[in-house]
Amino acid sequence: MSDTLVSPAQEPGASAVDVRTAVLDVARAAKEASRALATATRAQKDAALHAMADALVAGAARIVEANADDLERGRAAGMKTSLLDRLALDAARIGAIADALRELAALPDPVGEVVRGSTLPNGLRLRQVRVPMGVVGMIYEARPNVTVDAAGLALKSGNAVILRGGSAAASSNALIVEILGDALAAQGLPRELVQSIDAHGRAGAVELMRARGLVDVLVPRGGADLIQTVVRESLVPVIETGVGNCHVYVDAGADVAQALPIVLNSKTQRTGVCNAAETLLVHRDVAGEFLPAVLEALRAKDVTIHGDDATAAAAPAGVRFEPATEADWETEYLSLDLAVKVVDSLDEALAHIRRYSSGHTEVICTRDLAAARRFTTELDAAALIVNASSRFTDGGQFGLGAEIGISTQKLHARGPMGLGELTTTTWIVEGDGQIRE
Amino acid sequence: MSDTLVSPAQEPGASAVDVRTAVLDVARAAKEASRALATATRAQKDAALHAMADALVAGAARIVEANADDLERGRAAGMKTSLLDRLALDAARIGAIADALRELAALPDPVGEVVRGSTLPNGLRLRQVRVPMGVVGMIYEARPNVTVDAAGLALKSGNAVILRGGSAAASSNALIVEILGDALAAQGLPRELVQSIDAHGRAGAVELMRARGLVDVLVPRGGADLIQTVVRESLVPVIETGVGNCHVYVDAGADVAQALPIVLNSKTQRTGVCNAAETLLVHRDVAGEFLPAVLEALRAKDVTIHGDDATAAAAPAGVRFEPATEADWETEYLSLDLAVKVVDSLDEALAHIRRYSSGHTEVICTRDLAAARRFTTELDAAALIVNASSRFTDGGQFGLGAEIGISTQKLHARGPMGLGELTTTTWIVEGDGQIRE
Repeated sequence: MSDTLVSPAQEPGASAVDVRTAVLDVARAAKEASRALATATRAQKDAALHAMADALVAGAARIVEANADDLERGRAAGMKTSLLDRLALDAARIGAIADALRELAALPDPVGEVVRGSTLPNGLRLRQVRVPMGVVGMIYEARPNVTVDAAGLALKSGNAVILRGGSAAASSNALIVEILGDALAAQGLPRELVQSIDAHGRAGAVELMRARGLVDVLVPRGGADLIQTVVRESLVPVIETGVGNCHVYVDAGADVAQALPIVLNSKTQRTGVCNAAETLLVHRDVAGEFLPAVLEALRAKDVTIHGDDATAAAAPAGVRFEPATEADWETEYLSLDLAVKVVDSLDEALAHIRRYSSGHTEVICTRDLAAARRFTTELDAAALIVNASSRFTDGGQFGLGAEIGISTQKLHARGPMGLGELTTTTWIVEGDGQIRE
Repeated sequence: MSDTLVSPAQEPGASAVDVRTAVLDVARAAKEASRALATATRAQKDAALHAMADALVAGAARIVEANADDLERGRAAGMKTSLLDRLALDAARIGAIADALRELAALPDPVGEVVRGSTLPNGLRLRQVRVPMGVVGMIYEARPNVTVDAAGLALKSGNAVILRGGSAAASSNALIVEILGDALAAQGLPRELVQSIDAHGRAGAVELMRARGLVDVLVPRGGADLIQTVVRESLVPVIETGVGNCHVYVDAGADVAQALPIVLNSKTQRTGVCNAAETLLVHRDVAGEFLPAVLEALRAKDVTIHGDDATAAAAPAGVRFEPATEADWETEYLSLDLAVKVVDSLDEALAHIRRYSSGHTEVICTRDLAAARRFTTELDAAALIVNASSRFTDGGQFGLGAEIGISTQKLHARGPMGLGELTTTTWIVEGDGQIRE
């Protein structure tokens, strides 16, 4: 389980009942505040986003100071350098975070969009309209930029947000929430639109997950353990994001010159992300030509290969190679590691992917129309890509604007989620006295 | 909690591990079968629906015989007449159930619908396409028609279904599932597309709720207790259906002659349904004119009034009247009972509805544009209706075709759900070697 949810940040002496009451009070205040926002105009929301951005920049020195406390605690606790780096804020990073809020202001407002509508035979005017969810809960790890990001996304989509960040960023997050609240209040909006329950530790997170009816949706952001814990424990509906055990399959009909950069880009353009490739499957008919070339190119990028026997046989000297075990087919490395297997047929590739896919992104490289059609209709994933890098599964790349995350579940949202996915719909029906016969 | 989930139908001696293994085997077989269906054409699916309909009609005599066993057990157990009636099947009812399958065949296929698409600046062709969920679980009470209905809806939307019906209909359901399976097999489709886990009793239902990853969505159909139990216990994503504590508000600006039939129709056109009105709110300015007339009309329909003092004062002689308590504002009567309250303002009406609404359907009767606008933008429900009966919140009435249920949750589906709500989407991306810079 993630450090976020096990860390006993709860103050000593606070009883479970106290925490429950406190979190439910926060949730009720959020629900109340969300009503004010539901009828706010886009202009009011965009003005608030700009005010929030300006306030963060104005408060940068104080934020850096609070962040220094977090960093000091992190260093004292032996936190890894990579995590310390994700936690660290300076004026430039705060400027970038503020700019992201301004970019949100420039995006269209999803609220009020008419999804469909018609006039019924009896004259009733029917329309299905996007409305805010109400209260969005976010549970995430030690990245203070997510605090601002989540607040901005929720605000633009008309929702109040309740934040539960990692205890490692507690000082930074507390000050950021205070600054954002002041900015909202100055705009005439309730500061309860952005609240944190960090003070209530893990017990608070558990109460948030139980606040069904007050919290409309929970979005966990972070590692697989964090996400699975929330999925398992929450009574509030959850949007599951992120785990990507993505495959690239190089078919017998592949253009191998085109496939090579696709494999390299999918694996190495960025490694710590859910849409990076973790397994390469190569059809036996092209393995002799393709494998030595791709393994050499991967070696030049410092990739360690976890391969089957056929891959071992094809590996040029100097390739860092380990025999693949069952665990390799299952693992989302998020590092410069790649599992590689030679398959005898498209069917074997499809069967392998069906067994090990996390339902995120699967890629085929082929010139064969029938193979492409089978790959895109017989597999079950958020994105199925033909002849392009797995790294394109991304809200920005898809042109959806700001991305809340990449959903790997089937309900409500699948794949990259934009602002629209933080809304629901209402049917509005207008009549002139119609009754049912 | 509902009788369906508490009845100890599990056979003595069957261990929890055995039930778990059996239900997971059913779920795996369903997942496997769903693959065959995912790529079936609409013509194949429609042919299967017609074959299922024909097989039910051909097997009507056997079904009536099996149903007689259920009815006998029900009578012996002292089942209420109304429940026995819902359980009973005869040739005419079986014919109607079969016709519903034929009507499903006539509806458009949601699978393959392109929801949106574009060509990205880098030349990638992007489209979001509807695909089946995979495996749908249905947990419902003692109505054998739901067995067929659920099987048909799942098949048309390309999904395998796992059924858990009430033990009261066990004999009818077992035979119906067998007949549907034979019909599917004769059409060259796997009989595992329609499976029942009734033999595993409550323990089986619990395992179904835990089969996350194998079962893609659970739809409970039945009373509020059944639905809440599933929502609370399920690890599989749930679509919550049905509870409707619906209000009709007669505004100061109402056309009272138009409002009267709307109130009557909302309350009495059918009482045991989720879109029937349960509370009437009347603005004080029109109460003197409207209340005596509407109470007299409701009396003529045998409606019992649970009212506040102002309502009592306005009630004509002969009206069956009980003073309203807090419980009356909260209750979904599903009977010839109506809670009635006089309010001083639109704000008071909105506050009352916000407090007691189950988020299903809310109605305003008014000629005042501003009041209508506030009602439809400040309330939070699946359907908000101006000057028409609450009974219109219905998939058939909305022109959506067959209805799976009426969702009162905000995630994935809200309001009447058609076949499209049993699907998810996949992003299909076609390129020519594009990689990310």
